[in-house]
Amino acid sequence: MDKKINLSFGAGGQKMEEFLRKHIIGKLDVCKNEKCLVGLDKMDDAGVLDIDGKKLAFTADSFTVDPIFFPGGSIGKLSVCGIVNDLAVMGAKPLAMSLSLIIPSGFDVDELEKVIKDVANTAKKVRISIICGDTKVVEGLDNLMISASGIGICEKVVKDSGARARDKILINGSVANHGFAVLLAQKKFEFEGNIQSDVAPVWEIVEAVAKEIGWENIHAMKDPTRGGISEALNEMAIKSGYVFEIEEKKIPVNESIRALSEILGISPYDMSNEGKVLMVVDKSYEKEALRVMKEFDESANSIGEVKKEKSLGNLSVVLKTKENSFRYLQRPLGDPVPRVC
Amino acid sequence: MDKKINLSFGAGGQKMEEFLRKHIIGKLDVCKNEKCLVGLDKMDDAGVLDIDGKKLAFTADSFTVDPIFFPGGSIGKLSVCGIVNDLAVMGAKPLAMSLSLIIPSGFDVDELEKVIKDVANTAKKVRISIICGDTKVVEGLDNLMISASGIGICEKVVKDSGARARDKILINGSVANHGFAVLLAQKKFEFEGNIQSDVAPVWEIVEAVAKEIGWENIHAMKDPTRGGISEALNEMAIKSGYVFEIEEKKIPVNESIRALSEILGISPYDMSNEGKVLMVVDKSYEKEALRVMKEFDESANSIGEVKKEKSLGNLSVVLKTKENSFRYLQRPLGDPVPRVC
Repeated sequence: MDKKINLSFGAGGQKMEEFLRKHIIGKLDVCKNEKCLVGLDKMDDAGVLDIDGKKLAFTADSFTVDPIFFPGGSIGKLSVCGIVNDLAVMGAKPLAMSLSLIIPSGFDVDELEKVIKDVANTAKKVRISIICGDTKVVEGLDNLMISASGIGICEKVVKDSGARARDKILINGSVANHGFAVLLAQKKFEFEGNIQSDVAPVWEIVEAVAKEIGWENIHAMKDPTRGGISEALNEMAIKSGYVFEIEEKKIPVNESIRALSEILGISPYDMSNEGKVLMVVDKSYEKEALRVMKEFDESANSIGEVKKEKSLGNLSVVLKTKENSFRYLQRPLGDPVPRVC
Repeated sequence: MDKKINLSFGAGGQKMEEFLRKHIIGKLDVCKNEKCLVGLDKMDDAGVLDIDGKKLAFTADSFTVDPIFFPGGSIGKLSVCGIVNDLAVMGAKPLAMSLSLIIPSGFDVDELEKVIKDVANTAKKVRISIICGDTKVVEGLDNLMISASGIGICEKVVKDSGARARDKILINGSVANHGFAVLLAQKKFEFEGNIQSDVAPVWEIVEAVAKEIGWENIHAMKDPTRGGISEALNEMAIKSGYVFEIEEKKIPVNESIRALSEILGISPYDMSNEGKVLMVVDKSYEKEALRVMKEFDESANSIGEVKKEKSLGNLSVVLKTKENSFRYLQRPLGDPVPRVC
């Protein structure tokens, strides 16, 4: 057993799940009461509590992205979107959030103001109130970090485990932009191409789809962040108990991402997104759901379906390749990029 | 104007408040809706939202205490108590919390397990469910940090501004233990004496007092953390609009704290506490409230009263010294100890 924690323990893949289950979650899940509808042990995107019949979703995230400004966004925008999206995929309309700043001593006030401005603008746009927070200034830290948490009221509690046989799997646009944008911003190498992070709130899209097809026809959702769609699809398949079959040619990947991915030999499916939602819907509503998604982003697509076959642990997502062969889309051990969120 | 952020900006005193108001809070408080009963601008211990008539308190804190283990506690115990106490002084029974770990790469798994065990034991004791969280592993960090947030249902929304003329001011035990315990653990100097942090949840005490005297007779509460009782009393007095008069001889300070305080020339009133609550109660219920407090800790005392005179900004707390002279108990510019919580 590893006795020292390394980067892969926090990288969002299979190794992280094993570490969390063994050392953290099993030990913290000690006080669950009748108000707790979705607890820590579910490892869903948010916990859910019953408050006199209202279903309150509650989620938390820390943001350690480096650099703190990257093409398409910043740690400020990311903090609000990260919280909003975890609530949204739980079926919850974002209500309020906390914002805790951990600032390195010597940090520039103007830089901080730029971050705060991004937080404020994003929060205002999605109409989430920031109602509490904390500020610490410490030595021994290389960059600004933000911890946030948020609450929202579930229109319906949408668990990531809810996929049913024959459901359709949709995504609201092209994948891997956030991961590659941060990787390039980390200046590990040169690339001539305009790659922007997709960081954006997804609640508006989720709400619009639900309005069109009804909440009851959205069976599962997840935002594919660390570990990309590979990780998110596997988690959803494993939890549902069914095999997911994904058609590779249907996965939206824009041209510059595809080029960069081939140069670097990093699968875009393993790379993180910060403005995407994977939505599993009843097969009868595939077309309507997709039409609504396309109003937000034309590259949205229906990428596969839930099979009636039972899933087989970590071999639960089958990828039908462009050459019409089949392979497993495996869970990455961890995200290929450190400090991506 | 300072263009670089230094430790005093996050140290919990007057300088921090000015910094927060100017650069952060004014800019984040952009989206307040009708559900928001206590917002960020109040700088109270928690925000409060109306959820169909239920008053939901929501608070957040980051814990960067160094060292992470100190006499009487650890960053794990501190994280739960910090959240529980912010909820308790808002009049809220703790319900659920989030726990986000920011772990330095190379951190020892056994150390982490000790911290998690402290979190779990404390959470279990106060019956708060940990229902969401996040784990990041990063390089460029000198020690484990924890960000937490929590929600609770207010029995009554107890604002820190609610003190009324002639109210009595009580504290549940001797002050400054946490600050001095951490200072000694930082090994800045030698001292022969057993000083333990007071880190503990205060909800049980608050609830017991409320049961005895009624919530309506508790007018204001605050937990005197960073900046000690000097900071907390000043904030309460300034916000209430009344002068507070404190009798120095009545402030409980135990012997070893007093000795250490004299050696170092640091006022125990400026040092942080993590298991104390300042409670402002209707004068008719002083005795009953104190009797209940003493059942938990014999050193609890009634330390002063709210005067009918209007407060004068930063000169709002008058200390009647042991020699029966009067001086202002001023707000510290910041906490005397870095990374105390």
